[in-house]
Amino acid sequence: MKDLDALFKHFLRDIFYAERQVERTLPKMARKAESADLKEAFEHHLEETEGQIENLRKVFDHLGMKARGVTCEAINGILEEGKEIMEEAETGDARDAGMIAAAQAVEHYEITRYGTLIAWGRTLKLDKDVLDLLQANLDQEYAADEKLTKMAEGQLNSEAA
Amino acid sequence: MKDLDALFKHFLRDIFYAERQVERTLPKMARKAESADLKEAFEHHLEETEGQIENLRKVFDHLGMKARGVTCEAINGILEEGKEIMEEAETGDARDAGMIAAAQAVEHYEITRYGTLIAWGRTLKLDKDVLDLLQANLDQEYAADEKLTKMAEGQLNSEAA
Repeated sequence: MKDLDALFKHFLRDIFYAERQVERTLPKMARKAESADLKEAFEHHLEETEGQIENLRKVFDHLGMKARGVTCEAINGILEEGKEIMEEAETGDARDAGMIAAAQAVEHYEITRYGTLIAWGRTLKLDKDVLDLLQANLDQEYAADEKLTKMAEGQLNSEAA
Repeated sequence: MKDLDALFKHFLRDIFYAERQVERTLPKMARKAESADLKEAFEHHLEETEGQIENLRKVFDHLGMKARGVTCEAINGILEEGKEIMEEAETGDARDAGMIAAAQAVEHYEITRYGTLIAWGRTLKLDKDVLDLLQANLDQEYAADEKLTKMAEGQLNSEAA
């Protein structure tokens, strides 16, 4: 990777891989959720994630790149930790609280990566279409994180206490 | 992990492990930094990280727990990815831009974990001293993330382009 353009392409493949791993994981989290609201939130975020993957395919297309991922050790580690929490929680309420924390770690990883891609994309003077697609994904991640905070602080943390 | 108290203790050990891994990694990042400002930023954050580890030791002490970590696959994955970027960047400028992105992924992981710990700590009605120590660490992570964004967008991304 010799310059910002190469870094941008690498990180685009990294987040594409990450989103696809998240797409595979969210159905399992929805199935494990005790709270109906949390189950619905995970199912809703799965739909959003599918849309985000489509957005990334459009970005690859705009840049004349083949849509393919590159293994992202960060998301693998974050999801592995989430899996451990799901397995080790001994009650549904504790599992819900732990899964929210795990999902928020995923959101924050995506937030930082989209933030970096957008900053790099601006410096590289990429098309507005590309920046808008990345910004749309970033906005959804912020909203998803905020929604999980409200669910946790509204009721689910207390139920796990 | 049967309830929120058990989750809190597990996550406290998780972030303690994470901070100590970060403490080990920052000197390498400072050595690799091309920009004198970035080197200084990593050295400064190393000092902050040492203070944060001390804060966590105080939290363990308040709670009557032995200060020990538990392997955190998430931070290991995030740092592994950062190491790859450091090794694969072919110029100092590209490495600086990539290391900032890697460091921001670390900050965001810590931000989400401290955010969760503080929310859980409030629900568990933990001592104000404990919450204040965690909040102090969270505030520093937010500030460190913001500082890196400014450095990247101010100059370093352009130099890597």
